[in-house]
Amino acid sequence: MTGNNSARPLLAGLEPAQILETLLAAAAAAARETLPRFRSPLAVENKLAGGFDPVTEADKQAEIAVRDLIAARFPDHGLIGEEWDPKLSDNPCQWIIDPIDGTRAFISGVPVWGTLIGFMVDGRAQAGLMAQPFTGETYVGLPGRSIYRRGVEEIVLRTSAVTEIGRAKLSTTTPDLFVQTGTQRPWDALRAQVLQTRYGLDCYAYCLLAAGHIDLIVEPGLKNVDIAPLVPIIENAGGIVTTWEGGAPEEGGNCIAAATPELHAAAMAVLRAA
Amino acid sequence: MTGNNSARPLLAGLEPAQILETLLAAAAAAARETLPRFRSPLAVENKLAGGFDPVTEADKQAEIAVRDLIAARFPDHGLIGEEWDPKLSDNPCQWIIDPIDGTRAFISGVPVWGTLIGFMVDGRAQAGLMAQPFTGETYVGLPGRSIYRRGVEEIVLRTSAVTEIGRAKLSTTTPDLFVQTGTQRPWDALRAQVLQTRYGLDCYAYCLLAAGHIDLIVEPGLKNVDIAPLVPIIENAGGIVTTWEGGAPEEGGNCIAAATPELHAAAMAVLRAA
Repeated sequence: MTGNNSARPLLAGLEPAQILETLLAAAAAAARETLPRFRSPLAVENKLAGGFDPVTEADKQAEIAVRDLIAARFPDHGLIGEEWDPKLSDNPCQWIIDPIDGTRAFISGVPVWGTLIGFMVDGRAQAGLMAQPFTGETYVGLPGRSIYRRGVEEIVLRTSAVTEIGRAKLSTTTPDLFVQTGTQRPWDALRAQVLQTRYGLDCYAYCLLAAGHIDLIVEPGLKNVDIAPLVPIIENAGGIVTTWEGGAPEEGGNCIAAATPELHAAAMAVLRAA
Repeated sequence: MTGNNSARPLLAGLEPAQILETLLAAAAAAARETLPRFRSPLAVENKLAGGFDPVTEADKQAEIAVRDLIAARFPDHGLIGEEWDPKLSDNPCQWIIDPIDGTRAFISGVPVWGTLIGFMVDGRAQAGLMAQPFTGETYVGLPGRSIYRRGVEEIVLRTSAVTEIGRAKLSTTTPDLFVQTGTQRPWDALRAQVLQTRYGLDCYAYCLLAAGHIDLIVEPGLKNVDIAPLVPIIENAGGIVTTWEGGAPEEGGNCIAAATPELHAAAMAVLRAA
């Protein structure tokens, strides 16, 4: 994955190999903070008074580790993370970090959480990584190519060819979010038509979509850190990801990801009609 | 885990080490059929006309591999599996097999499916195994002890100490099943009171309960093969698993598993009152 010159303009003149190596090194730094704390007794804090939004020490320390590594290599780039204040910059390049996407999966011992790191240029995600250190899986998206790595295995990712809703495997993290955000009607309309619905996957679902195993994901109320790093993985595997209004998904909100443009259009029509 | 003589009466006079070794060898035989087919294009058959109940070649071949291995060692024992007709026997010893519990997870590429193998004596599950070959995890329950193995790591499993519903991490595979079985009211009553609810885990949830990461599981309409092999893992880690009526869960039906007797009683009271 080196020397792809056509990718350089998208990466603000940086080499794809340089971005890739930074993403992998940052993920490794995060894993040193997250993995030893996975399935260990955790001091869970309550971020929202009255609600349950677990933030672990792993979350905070992993973000520091990623930010420190990136800041040392690219001191003039911006940094946005989930746990700490953003580091603003006039530079068009910005890194966006969710140290543990799926903290509830993390505290339940389920290895479908992931460390998300994205590289944005002028607000558009151009490279991104999801790493799941317990299973040893890494999914990376770069201009023109998305790959999966596990140990010595490397696979070029390709979304499925599913175009019809009736053949689609659908996923969302929890149906309760649709109730909470007043979007249950479009959700119910969509899942009534699909082949099967799978819950509980957080960022892992988007990577399985890039890999061709899941065809459609619909989620309400995502944060920018939840989705921006995944955009290059999905898009460079042949998939499409937008808001429910069809806009760029980097700012979060209600998002939809599909294996093919046809499936995306069909699902958007169902969401709009409901 | 050898030479535990007090366990022998429960195991119909067989040695715990002999049962353990058989469970592990059978799981390895199943993995040779399942793992190469995981995340590969699969010829999915429709078991139910009009419905979607994927049965893969992996499922069928894995069950054959497990049955052949057990039958060679214990030719007079009974065999119950999900995919093939039962082998009946007058012998009180019976093996119960779900070659791939969580076939929908399997075809979606999610590594929370598992191979389940249980050893029953007079209808009561006395030993059981769940193996997840992609993550390399094995959970085993034997009289007096449940263990987790992954590579060289071995951990004695212990459920959490959670006794109150308000502190419980709850799980179920899909909330849609409660709608389909007319049991949404007790489910809604329960999940309104818990700390968090997690979906999408199949057999993996019961193992995480045995390991102390999930506290409560409620599921409607389980088959005997879905739950019987997991009973010894849960019980010998300190947990409790019954039907919603409080009976033995080996025959399946509506089941509830809890980390402590107090949590079990509290959750049963909520289910009954709704």
